[in-house]
Amino acid sequence: MRDSYREELDDINACLVGMANAVGSAMSTATTALLDADVALADLVIAGDEQIDAMRENIEQRCFTLLARQQPVAGDLRVITTAMRMVSDLERMGDLCEHISKVARMRFPEHAVPQEVRPAFLEAGHVAEMLIAKAGTVIATRDVEAARELETDDDAMDAIHRELFRELLSDKWPHGVETAIDITLLGRYYERFGDHAVGVARRVVYLVTGERHVPEVSHP
Amino acid sequence: MRDSYREELDDINACLVGMANAVGSAMSTATTALLDADVALADLVIAGDEQIDAMRENIEQRCFTLLARQQPVAGDLRVITTAMRMVSDLERMGDLCEHISKVARMRFPEHAVPQEVRPAFLEAGHVAEMLIAKAGTVIATRDVEAARELETDDDAMDAIHRELFRELLSDKWPHGVETAIDITLLGRYYERFGDHAVGVARRVVYLVTGERHVPEVSHP
Repeated sequence: MRDSYREELDDINACLVGMANAVGSAMSTATTALLDADVALADLVIAGDEQIDAMRENIEQRCFTLLARQQPVAGDLRVITTAMRMVSDLERMGDLCEHISKVARMRFPEHAVPQEVRPAFLEAGHVAEMLIAKAGTVIATRDVEAARELETDDDAMDAIHRELFRELLSDKWPHGVETAIDITLLGRYYERFGDHAVGVARRVVYLVTGERHVPEVSHP
Repeated sequence: MRDSYREELDDINACLVGMANAVGSAMSTATTALLDADVALADLVIAGDEQIDAMRENIEQRCFTLLARQQPVAGDLRVITTAMRMVSDLERMGDLCEHISKVARMRFPEHAVPQEVRPAFLEAGHVAEMLIAKAGTVIATRDVEAARELETDDDAMDAIHRELFRELLSDKWPHGVETAIDITLLGRYYERFGDHAVGVARRVVYLVTGERHVPEVSHP
């Protein structure tokens, strides 16, 4: 009994890593859909979000079953409650990829992202993919040092976000309000994606060390 | 032992209701700070968010202790895991009030919200206060019917959000891009606040009926 219990805990962790990988793919595809105005890719992300939601459902249910049947001790309890948290962050990250794809879809056949801010979104996409890849590795390895690094890694996203606003507010911005709204929301989606990756990393730090960072991932 | 356990479960629920009330006050104050460009009120919300975070911390810790010490059966387990979820929604709602207040603070002594969209934000504030008040009541009473109503109630927020975009995109919008960015973000904060209130209500429905709505509160 105890052995299959350990196996189940390990398997839940493997599923979390799988979910992080799925979210990373969604982010990569969503960014391409956005930058290439590729509606087929956008639809792929939008349809694929159901699978990410299903992963959440599955992991949550299994955590709940473990809690109910195994009456885990404090350490394992922390593993399970942390998994239930991480799965929320990861699902929300999937939603944000879907939101990005929906903006691409809404503006098709136009490009939602004008040339001036294209490099910023390319960069935001790369940073986002790096953050989720690292978060996935951190879930797998429980490497606290790497987990802490994500806080600093995310600063790059915040810098891109500030740069975007500078572009929008420059006197030379020629695209009017509609595009400014799109860019503002898209910038927010990428920024929140980064925040949630940091959230996942913080939960790993808590899991291993018991240290609590300010619990919420919150940027103004 | 069992009696003090029941009392603790009841008390956790009372704390959740108290937290919902605190979030409602924060929303009310944040909206006034925004519409009156009242920086003292804005600072009150920003400073007060720490207390909301502390409420989360406290409730989470107590849930964890119950899980570890009492090895609750399925029904109580669901109460506890649901509380841990709701507390995340509520804390995030507090953050959103803080974000609104920070926009007010950033534009002070100017008004962040120009006259044209003032009625929309007044209305958004009222809907938000109604949603969180109702969510608090639903936590207290576990009234599934009222919980389901929140889904429809939130439609009012989505309508306001669409109306905002219409204003921003009208040919008559005289305020330029900076204000458009503020309004876009503010609109998003109110909308997400509503989404999280619906999220709280859904968790109550799940708690009572075992029914799972699509688990994530997600609007494009």
